[in-house]
Order: sequence, then structure tokens, then C-alpha cells
Amino acid sequence: MKVVNINERVLKRNEQMAAEIRTLLKEKNVFLVNLRGSPGAGKTTILEKVIAELKGRKRIAVIEGDLYTTRDAERLEKYGVQVVQVNTGGICHLEADMVKQALSKINLEIIDLLVIENVGNLVCTADYDLGEEIGIIVLSVSEGSDKIMKYPLIFQSSEIMLINKLDMLKNTDFSTVEIERDLNRINREMVVFNLSCKTGEGIFEFSRCLEERIDEFQATAD
Amino acid sequence: MKVVNINERVLKRNEQMAAEIRTLLKEKNVFLVNLRGSPGAGKTTILEKVIAELKGRKRIAVIEGDLYTTRDAERLEKYGVQVVQVNTGGICHLEADMVKQALSKINLEIIDLLVIENVGNLVCTADYDLGEEIGIIVLSVSEGSDKIMKYPLIFQSSEIMLINKLDMLKNTDFSTVEIERDLNRINREMVVFNLSCKTGEGIFEFSRCLEERIDEFQATAD
Repeated sequence: MKVVNINERVLKRNEQMAAEIRTLLKEKNVFLVNLRGSPGAGKTTILEKVIAELKGRKRIAVIEGDLYTTRDAERLEKYGVQVVQVNTGGICHLEADMVKQALSKINLEIIDLLVIENVGNLVCTADYDLGEEIGIIVLSVSEGSDKIMKYPLIFQSSEIMLINKLDMLKNTDFSTVEIERDLNRINREMVVFNLSCKTGEGIFEFSRCLEERIDEFQATAD
Repeated sequence: MKVVNINERVLKRNEQMAAEIRTLLKEKNVFLVNLRGSPGAGKTTILEKVIAELKGRKRIAVIEGDLYTTRDAERLEKYGVQVVQVNTGGICHLEADMVKQALSKINLEIIDLLVIENVGNLVCTADYDLGEEIGIIVLSVSEGSDKIMKYPLIFQSSEIMLINKLDMLKNTDFSTVEIERDLNRINREMVVFNLSCKTGEGIFEFSRCLEERIDEFQATAD
């Protein structure tokens, strides 16, 4: 019982911090995305592709969440964007106060889009609001099409779903019918993109969608 | 600070409970395996194959960990083994007291092997000892070969690693050289099996290894 109370308190504190982040980023006109998915779903590779696609169109920074390493951050730095690594030291998700600390290391005046790449985890990353405008969930076809009902919270708390590694589809028993049926049950508003970072399928469409969302967000500023 | 202390207390209580489970299962001569991996790594499918392979040789029961659903348990029940579903209600890992409750629903007198299929998660499932004799980690090639250094604890706390979905290898940039190098750094004793549930590769070898471990365990009983 005690643990549950503490957990509630932790989540409440997190919510307050997330609200502060939301206010700050609205003021700075920075659109925040919380990118989530299983380990190996392809989050970093998608980011590489989107950063390349939006080059010269939107100014991007990334907060990289990871347990211990800086590998993904190193991969993204090559694309000339601001990258801040947050090492959780074994915690399975990012929390708003970690993001707030990272924000102090980013020049918010010169960016339009800030992407948080969360720790690879479909469970607890769904519980912690990081102040984002939208949540994006990446599901690779190799993970199987039963994941929506098994991890419903993360699919409920996302606005965009990226079905990744489409090039592998024929080697799996992934069922798009099952995905459609389950989204109908728990999140009818979900916007879905089919992606393959190998063939490039869907990268343009997803990037344009992101760009439009940033434009809308920035148009409502002040 | 308070949260950390509570967490330590939770882990300490978990350890005591795990020790009780270990004692009980030693007494009952039941070999306990803690099977872990990302969502969609292929844990349930591997279990289906191993149960079929060990049919008539070892008597098996399964504890299925999942957030909310009973899907995996339903899949396994078809193989005629005892299956107990544990729904964590949103918690990202199993804990020893959940396993203890499940044990009361299993007839331990008539089994040799009890497999716990943990929640799909590479992080917190590494923290909670469930009283197992061995930890097994499943990594599918589609997840990428950078996972050992990104989630070191779970690879350190496992004795057997199953590299799964080998049939997809040619469609990925998975590097067995990277895996070997990283295992050399953090767990030189790891026993590795290459598996494909599609082609059947490695299922026989892994099942035999498991059988030998059960025989050794049971031979040292009393």
C-alpha cells in the first residue's frame, strides 16, 4: 500500500513537471515529440531518416534516453543536430525531471522540433508524461501484431503509430487486419504510417505529417 | 531519496521471497527457468517448440507473465501443459511474490521443469530474482546486435542466450561479431544457441541442453 502511494506521488510530481515543460516549450515555440517503442523497434534509425528528410526545413534537437550508453546519441550527432544524452542509470523510462535537466543544455531559441527518444520499453514509458505535444509509438513488424492488446496503454497514449521494418513483412506472420481491429478497439484516432528505413517507404509521408503538426503548433503561438 | 530506500526494501523483500521459492522447488525437485526478452522477441513461440520437443521426456508447467491479457497462456494450454497466468496489472516485470502465488496453483509433484515467461522488457525483469535456477535471455536478430551493451544487466544475469529469428538474419545488419565481442566484455560464461522457430534450427540443441540441466539438478536433490 505504501509503495502504491509513493508511486502516485511520483506520478503527480511528474505531471506538474511535465506541465512546466509544456508551458516553457509553448513559450519558446518548440514542438515536443515523445518517441517510444521496444528495444530494437528502429527508433534511432527512423530519427536518422527524418532528420535527413527535414534538413533545411525544420531545426531539430534530440534528447536521447538510455540506461547507460551514449551509442544512439553518437549516431545522431553525425547529422549535425543538437543531441543531449540522458542516462537513466538503470531506470526503465524517462521522467519529466530528467527531461527538464536536459532542456537546460539545449538552445531552445534555435529549434522548431525537439524529439525525445525514450528508453526501449512498452510499459513504463506509457506512464510518464514528458510534456510532449504528441506521443509516437514505433512497432516493428518483426515484433508481431499482437502487441496493441498486450501493451494497450502505450498505444492509447500515442497519436501516431509507425509500423516499421515493412521490408520484413513477408518473413513474418504480422497481420495488418489484427492491428486495424485492435486500434478500432482502443484508439480510433491513431494516425498510422507504414515505414521501411531500408527502402525509404513512408519516411517522406511521416516527415511531412510531422512538419504540418509543427507548423500548426507554431501558428497558434503567442 | 525516499523512493530509493523503498525500492531497496522492495528488492530485499523480493530476495527473501525468491530464496523461499528456491528452497521449495529444490525440495519438490522442480527446475525453474526465468525466460526474458523484449516484446516480440519470440519467447512464447520458443516455449511452444521446446514443449513439443520435450514431450514425453520432461513434464513441464508454465507461469505466463503479462500485463492484462491471457493470450500467451491460451496458446500454451493447447500443448497440454499446466499454465498459470499472472497478470501484473500494468507492472513491467514479475516479482517473486507473484510467482509464489502462482505456485500454489500448480501441482509441483508431477513436473520436472517450470518455465516463467516474464513480461516483455529488458530492463526491470533483470532486477527481480524469481527463485530461478537459470535465467534465459531471448534476443531476436531483428532487434539489432547493439542490445548487450545497452541493456547489460539482463545479459549479465542470464546463463543462456537464445539468438532467435535466425531465418531473418539476411534481412538485417545484425552482427554476430558484435555479440561475441560484447559477451566477452560482460558475460564470458554465457551459453549461446542460434534459433529459428520457423526452420526449427537450434530447437533440438537447446532442448537437449535444458534437459541435461534438469537431469543434473535432479541428480543433486536430497
